[in-house]
Amino acid sequence: MKGLPSLERAVVVLSRFPGVGPKSARRMVHHLLRRGHGETGELIEALEGVRDRIRGCACCHNLAEEDSGAGEILCWICEDPLRDRSRLCVVEEPSDLLAIEKAGLFKGMYHVLGGRLSPLDGVGPDALNLASLESRLAGEGFAELIVATNSTVEGEATAHFVARLAEPFVPCITRLAHGLPMGGELEYIDESTLYQAIVGRRNFKI
Amino acid sequence: MKGLPSLERAVVVLSRFPGVGPKSARRMVHHLLRRGHGETGELIEALEGVRDRIRGCACCHNLAEEDSGAGEILCWICEDPLRDRSRLCVVEEPSDLLAIEKAGLFKGMYHVLGGRLSPLDGVGPDALNLASLESRLAGEGFAELIVATNSTVEGEATAHFVARLAEPFVPCITRLAHGLPMGGELEYIDESTLYQAIVGRRNFKI
Ligand SMILES: [Zn+2]
Ligand SMILES: [Zn+2]
Repeated sequence: MKGLPSLERAVVVLSRFPGVGPKSARRMVHHLLRRGHGETGELIEALEGVRDRIRGCACCHNLAEEDSGAGEILCWICEDPLRDRSRLCVVEEPSDLLAIEKAGLFKGMYHVLGGRLSPLDGVGPDALNLASLESRLAGEGFAELIVATNSTVEGEATAHFVARLAEPFVPCITRLAHGLPMGGELEYIDESTLYQAIVGRRNFKI
Repeated sequence: MKGLPSLERAVVVLSRFPGVGPKSARRMVHHLLRRGHGETGELIEALEGVRDRIRGCACCHNLAEEDSGAGEILCWICEDPLRDRSRLCVVEEPSDLLAIEKAGLFKGMYHVLGGRLSPLDGVGPDALNLASLESRLAGEGFAELIVATNSTVEGEATAHFVARLAEPFVPCITRLAHGLPMGGELEYIDESTLYQAIVGRRNFKI
């Protein structure tokens, strides 16, 4: 709308969020304007916190928050002396790490690749955190490497790349199981998941 | 997640947007972190623009953008010498005004109430821009007042309040027509809309 360039600019920038179209971006800006300056100020402060205090962990590339603002920082997992330092779980993104943490079973260490191999988008091995992964594999003596990339074509390709990289260093390399989601009904599961669930079937303990 | 208070804070604040739950707020923050500091900085700047430059129009309470930063400002409609100053359209929110402008037919002036009467939520006449409406009605000599509040119970009550307020000043007071949306199929229209469409039926010009 002519006459409101600042509003239009905010709509454009908010529309970049995945799943937020121009219509909902506009609704968001009007919501802020209805709520008044305090609400917008709180959002600005929160975003400044994200921009200024969230960093990549110097060891595993997970998200980490710095209190001081100076030098390299470690994430809460790398800093935790109670974690099992014999197992390493490789994930694509910090959000994948958080999902695994939420499941609550795995108590080892992580390495965040920062994406997946995608030659068509120009994402080769150099664009991912693979050099630091290799030096960790060579130096930290892991007993098991769990390759927890996504079940997509690119995630699988990345998993194979990581597994080959790790082979000289780690005796046991595993991959997350495929199968039915808990509570999932066969009727609604896609066929490739069902195929993997049948391939991976296990003895029924009775 | 412990260890990332800035991220959690941003999730909380973003979750306040209507239609944005904690899950999508989290996805938004991770999107920003993936895109890097520049993207978050652009969003912060855009929000600062909204907070610091968007004001209420001193005449009609529409949104207006100030270039200078000093004193009272008028919106692009109140400033436009080509608008028809004999007609006034009363709406609840600036977003309603923008919707009517997009329709492109109305070329008169507006008055934005800043909400609707809602006694249960403590929104009485004093909370809306009704005093300034009355002084405009008394002073500007409008030929027609279009009451374009929403078709909700509260919007209708507000419309009646505005119409009674305007009666001494304006010869012609109108309300937007109810009826079938363009392209709407009878089967899918709610019954009260259909009722209003039948009540308001017009001669078929053949
Ligand atoms: Zn770490
Ligand atoms: Zn105005």
